[in-house]
Amino acid sequence: MVLQLIRLARVAAVVAFATTWAAAAIAQDLLPSWNDTAPKRAIVSFVERVTKAGSPDFVPPAERIAAFDNDGTLWAEQPLYFQFLFAIDRLRALAPQHPEWTDKEPFASLLKGDVKAALAGGEHALLEIVMATHAGMTTDEFEKIVKDWIATARHPITGRPYPEMTYQPMRELLAYLHANGFKTFIVSGGGVEFMRGFAEKVYDIPPEQVIGSTGKQKFELRDGKPVLVKLAAMDFIDDKDGKPISIQKFIGRRPIAAFGNSDGDLQMLQWTCETSGPRLCLYVHHTDADREWAYDRASSIGRLDKGLDEANVNGWTIVDMKRDWNQVFSFRLER
Amino acid sequence: MVLQLIRLARVAAVVAFATTWAAAAIAQDLLPSWNDTAPKRAIVSFVERVTKAGSPDFVPPAERIAAFDNDGTLWAEQPLYFQFLFAIDRLRALAPQHPEWTDKEPFASLLKGDVKAALAGGEHALLEIVMATHAGMTTDEFEKIVKDWIATARHPITGRPYPEMTYQPMRELLAYLHANGFKTFIVSGGGVEFMRGFAEKVYDIPPEQVIGSTGKQKFELRDGKPVLVKLAAMDFIDDKDGKPISIQKFIGRRPIAAFGNSDGDLQMLQWTCETSGPRLCLYVHHTDADREWAYDRASSIGRLDKGLDEANVNGWTIVDMKRDWNQVFSFRLER
Repeated sequence: MVLQLIRLARVAAVVAFATTWAAAAIAQDLLPSWNDTAPKRAIVSFVERVTKAGSPDFVPPAERIAAFDNDGTLWAEQPLYFQFLFAIDRLRALAPQHPEWTDKEPFASLLKGDVKAALAGGEHALLEIVMATHAGMTTDEFEKIVKDWIATARHPITGRPYPEMTYQPMRELLAYLHANGFKTFIVSGGGVEFMRGFAEKVYDIPPEQVIGSTGKQKFELRDGKPVLVKLAAMDFIDDKDGKPISIQKFIGRRPIAAFGNSDGDLQMLQWTCETSGPRLCLYVHHTDADREWAYDRASSIGRLDKGLDEANVNGWTIVDMKRDWNQVFSFRLER
Repeated sequence: MVLQLIRLARVAAVVAFATTWAAAAIAQDLLPSWNDTAPKRAIVSFVERVTKAGSPDFVPPAERIAAFDNDGTLWAEQPLYFQFLFAIDRLRALAPQHPEWTDKEPFASLLKGDVKAALAGGEHALLEIVMATHAGMTTDEFEKIVKDWIATARHPITGRPYPEMTYQPMRELLAYLHANGFKTFIVSGGGVEFMRGFAEKVYDIPPEQVIGSTGKQKFELRDGKPVLVKLAAMDFIDDKDGKPISIQKFIGRRPIAAFGNSDGDLQMLQWTCETSGPRLCLYVHHTDADREWAYDRASSIGRLDKGLDEANVNGWTIVDMKRDWNQVFSFRLER
């Protein structure tokens, strides 16, 4: 309770202070990993306009909704989506109980480390991998599996725990928005229960503000105790057109800011910004082959092609990671 | 901004005060429509235990999730679910554009005011009525239709605007929980976009905390402007087993308190309370034929049969409206 009071007081203090003429200076402090280039200026200008009482662009706190993609926007997504790396780790852990996987694709290839061969089976192979690792247990059991993994697993290239694979400038941006009364949501193609395993700790985003792809579930009483069992069937894919649909379903009002990095986020950015009122839409463009990875129009992971064209046409903000961020991760990637 | 500060300060003050030994007295003031009987004592005792720092039952604010059914729990549901009355009003408004309805069931009977004949077609007839009135427009258009209706329509028996058909004790309970750091969610079989048309104004529950049944939607660009079109197909029915499933999907953690009035809420109450930790589950039992309506085991609307047995077995709190509420609505129903 005391902690909550301190937190409330701190939020109130930050909010009050940030609305004075000193706002820009404060923002500088809250976004130290951002260079003083166009994207940072666009962010600070937007936040000042919507939070300044009496401003024609003022937005009441309840309507300060910001939507963030996760993979490639809040944390990295190379050499493979991290949830896929989680699935591979799970397959390895479960393999002793599944001798049949030795001869059965896509499992056989994946267990040998040959991702390309495993995914030759296309969408069906991917679905089989997801269902073998994300279904058949209760939601409580799955939560524990994810939390154990996130606490112990290491990224295959950097050797870092996955929470460290988040982008320092984006974590600062989340905190800056929180300090200015924004409610931030993750709206990602990733599995919702996977992301909830770390979003609160890593991003300060509670589970009810994490939206993602979902599988079907079944309610059961086991010895009188209710459980939800994760079934081997998809419910909803939260990507492309699915993002505005899930935003409407879960949030029920249009965000005033949206952040993405790929064509999968295009419809979310359109839904957010191609309407009246003060808006901020931002694409993270992966341009830094030294400190992160460089990829866009031709990449199979996080392809940014049509989105880049639309961003230019619509005047959305584009972050050139190499130019606009003075720090990418909290550590320095050695190459 | 100033308003927000005042609100934050007020919340902080209430929270601080409520944690002192004076908590019970405060609660008395915040729940004046509740008689000093077992349900009120159970509510106040629960809230004191989970909010008292150092208490073995203390629950951090982020985990103080409370789930409320809507129809029959927060507002009345007789003589018909209010959303169904909305649908009838919509059919009447749309009838001039649909001459074919004059000879077509279930529309013909409904337009003549014969609900029973209209519903003789069972679930299929109901679905046709819902789809004729809840689909085919954009989400923005539907929002306006609901808001206009809620502002002007009158209950067929009391002649009151629908926001006045909410239960005064339950509105006090929502405010009491909010003042104690709870995040309240509606988890209802009603349509999510229908409920969002009034939940914020009437219950102080923002759209992102309203969970309900959903229809399929389609994302479209119309002259470059993104819209979501409501399609004539159900997506999810948020009732019975659907309630714990939607709680998991939308909130991602178990509520510590749940409030319902019918067998449709049973699984939500089981999911909330049949587990370890401090919990409060409460059924509103409609026992007051003078001030409201009296119905339970035999009712087709809001049937409370198995739930009543389970409540007794599990020791959940049961509100006897006649005994436990000194006021039902903000007005006095004349009979």
